[in-house]
Amino acid sequence: MALREVEEEVERVVEEAKELHDSAASLINRTSGEEQSLRQRALSLDSNIRRLRSLLHSNNFDSKLVDKLEEDLQRATCLIYDGDASAFLPTKAEGGFLRMFIGPINVRASRKDVQLKVKEEYNAYRDRTALLFLLFPSTLLILRSWIWDGCLPAFPVQLYQAWLLFLYTGLALRENILRLNGSDIRPWWVYHHYCAMLMALVSLTWEIKGQPNCAQNQRGVQLFLQWAMMQGVSMLLQNRYQRQRLYTRIALGKAKRMDVVWGETAGVDGQLWLLCPMLFILQGFEAYVGLLLLRTALDGVVSEWQVIFCGVLLVLMAAGNFINTVQTLMAKSRFKAKMKRSKSKQEL
Amino acid sequence: MALREVEEEVERVVEEAKELHDSAASLINRTSGEEQSLRQRALSLDSNIRRLRSLLHSNNFDSKLVDKLEEDLQRATCLIYDGDASAFLPTKAEGGFLRMFIGPINVRASRKDVQLKVKEEYNAYRDRTALLFLLFPSTLLILRSWIWDGCLPAFPVQLYQAWLLFLYTGLALRENILRLNGSDIRPWWVYHHYCAMLMALVSLTWEIKGQPNCAQNQRGVQLFLQWAMMQGVSMLLQNRYQRQRLYTRIALGKAKRMDVVWGETAGVDGQLWLLCPMLFILQGFEAYVGLLLLRTALDGVVSEWQVIFCGVLLVLMAAGNFINTVQTLMAKSRFKAKMKRSKSKQEL
Repeated sequence: MALREVEEEVERVVEEAKELHDSAASLINRTSGEEQSLRQRALSLDSNIRRLRSLLHSNNFDSKLVDKLEEDLQRATCLIYDGDASAFLPTKAEGGFLRMFIGPINVRASRKDVQLKVKEEYNAYRDRTALLFLLFPSTLLILRSWIWDGCLPAFPVQLYQAWLLFLYTGLALRENILRLNGSDIRPWWVYHHYCAMLMALVSLTWEIKGQPNCAQNQRGVQLFLQWAMMQGVSMLLQNRYQRQRLYTRIALGKAKRMDVVWGETAGVDGQLWLLCPMLFILQGFEAYVGLLLLRTALDGVVSEWQVIFCGVLLVLMAAGNFINTVQTLMAKSRFKAKMKRSKSKQEL
Repeated sequence: MALREVEEEVERVVEEAKELHDSAASLINRTSGEEQSLRQRALSLDSNIRRLRSLLHSNNFDSKLVDKLEEDLQRATCLIYDGDASAFLPTKAEGGFLRMFIGPINVRASRKDVQLKVKEEYNAYRDRTALLFLLFPSTLLILRSWIWDGCLPAFPVQLYQAWLLFLYTGLALRENILRLNGSDIRPWWVYHHYCAMLMALVSLTWEIKGQPNCAQNQRGVQLFLQWAMMQGVSMLLQNRYQRQRLYTRIALGKAKRMDVVWGETAGVDGQLWLLCPMLFILQGFEAYVGLLLLRTALDGVVSEWQVIFCGVLLVLMAAGNFINTVQTLMAKSRFKAKMKRSKSKQEL
C-alpha cells in the first residue's frame, strides 16, 4: 500500500473519530435530558397516587366504588414500580456499607430485565452457599469424631471461619445492591448479616486450643458448628419456600418481582408449617448457644473477651430473628384477613 | 372532596401511569438501539486505527509524513478513549474477584464525568487511608514503649489487622471497578492487594503471645508494624507524585484520565528521585521482614504455620513490587529516548 493511500485512510479515520465523538456526546446529552423529565413525571405521579390513597382511606366513603378505586390505584402502582418506569423512580439512598467497600459507584440497573437477573443471581448464590453451609460444618464434625479423635485442629476451623466472613460480606453487599434495585427486603436481615460478619471476624481471632482438655476447650466451637449445620438446613428450606412463593406471587401479579424474603403476601401455605417450627427451633438453639458461651465466660472456664462478645451477639441475633419472624407472620395473617373481608364483601 | 371527584382523579392517574410506562419503555428501547449502533462504530473504528498504526510501523516509510500521520492517529485515539465515545468501547471482562463479592452487576459508568469522579474519589480514599496507615501502627508502637511496657496487648493489634483486611478488600474492589471504567492500572498492583488481604486474614488467626518472653514472642509483630509505618510514608509520597503526574499528563493531553499509578509517561521528574529510593528501601525492608519471619520459623523459635506463610508472602510481594517498579522505570526511560529521537528528527 502506498503512503498516499495510507494518508487518505488516516484522514478518513480522524474524520470518523470526530463524528463518533459527536454522536456519542449528543446521544448522552439527549438521553440524560429525557431521563430527567421522566424522573419528574414519575415522582409527581407517585406522590399523586399516595395522596389519593390516603384520601380514600381517611374520608370513610362506604361504597363498592372505593374498593374498585383502590384496585385501580394498586394497578397504577404496579405499572410504575414493576415496569420500565421504575428505573426513573427516586432510588433509596446508597447505604454507607456499600460505599465503604466500593465507593460512590452506581449499581442500579436501569432496565427491569437486568434488575430481575440480579435478583435471580442472588437466589442462585444463596442456593449454592446454603449447600456449602450444610456441608462445611458437618464435614468438620464428622472428621472430628472419625479421624481427629474428638479434637478439632485449628486450621480447618479457621478456614471455615474465613469462608464465613467472606460469605456474609458478599451477602451483605449483594443485599444492599438489591435494595438499591428496588427490593423490599426487611432491613433486619441485612443487619443480621452485619452481625454475622462481625462474629466471623471475632471468631478468627479466637484461639482454638487443643489437648489437653480438648473437649472442654472446644465446647464453644463444637456448639457453633452444630448450630451452623442447622442453619444450612433452614437456609435450604427458606430458599425453596421463597422461590416458590415469589413465582406464585409473580403469577398472581401481586408482587413487585424485586421482593426478597418474607414479603407480606402468602402463596404456598403448606410449606410454611414446616418452615416456621424449624425457624423457631433454630432461633432457640442460637440463643441457647449464646447463653452457654456467656456462662462459660462468667464461670471463668474461658476468660477471653471473644467468648463474651460472641455470646452477646448470638443472643441479640436470635432475639432479632424471632421478633422479625413474628412480625412477618402477623403481617401475613392481617393481609389474609383483609383479603377474606374484601372477598365476602364482593359476595354480598 | 366528593367521591365523584376522587374517581375522576384516579382515572387520570391511571391514564398517566400508562403513559409514563409507555414513554419509559420507548426511551429505553430507543436508547439501547442507538447505543448498540454506536458500539459497533466504535469497535470498527478502534480496529481500523490499530491496523493503520501497524501499517505505518511495518512498512518502513521514511518521511516526515509518517510522524504527522502517527500524531493524527494518536489524536483520533484520544478523541475516542477520552471523550463520551469511550462509554461505547468494549469493556474489559469483569474480574472474578468483583463477581465473587457483588455478583454480576454493572459498575461501569457510561458518562465520562462520572468515570472521572470515580477516579477522583479513589484518589481521595487513598489519601485518607495513607494517613491512617501511618498513624495506626505508629500509635501502637508509641503506646507499646510508653504505656504497655514493651508488650503489645492482643486486642488493639487485632483491631489493626481487621482494619487492614477491610482496607485491602476495599482497595482491591475499587481497583477492579476502576479497570472496568477504563483505567490502565498495572495488574500487579491489584494482585498485590489480594496478597495483602490474604496476609491480613492469616495474621488475624495468629495468636499474639504476651509475657513471659514478650520481646521474643512479639518480634514478628513489631517488625511488621515498623514496615507498615514506612508503607504509610511511601503511600503518602506516591499519592502526591501520582496526582501531580496525572494533572500534568491531563494538561499535556497525553493521558487518558483514567490511568492510575505508574503509567508510562513522565511529568514530574524531580519528585521521582525522592520516591524511587524510598520505594526500593521499602521493598528491601519488606523482604528482610519476610526472611526474618522465615528464620524464626526454621530455627524453631515460633512454630506456627502462619509465620512461614506470612514470611513467604512478604518475600513474594517484595520481589513483585521490585520487578514492577523496575519495569515501570524502564518503560519510562524508553519513552523518553523516543521523545528525544523524534525531537532531534524534527530539528533536522
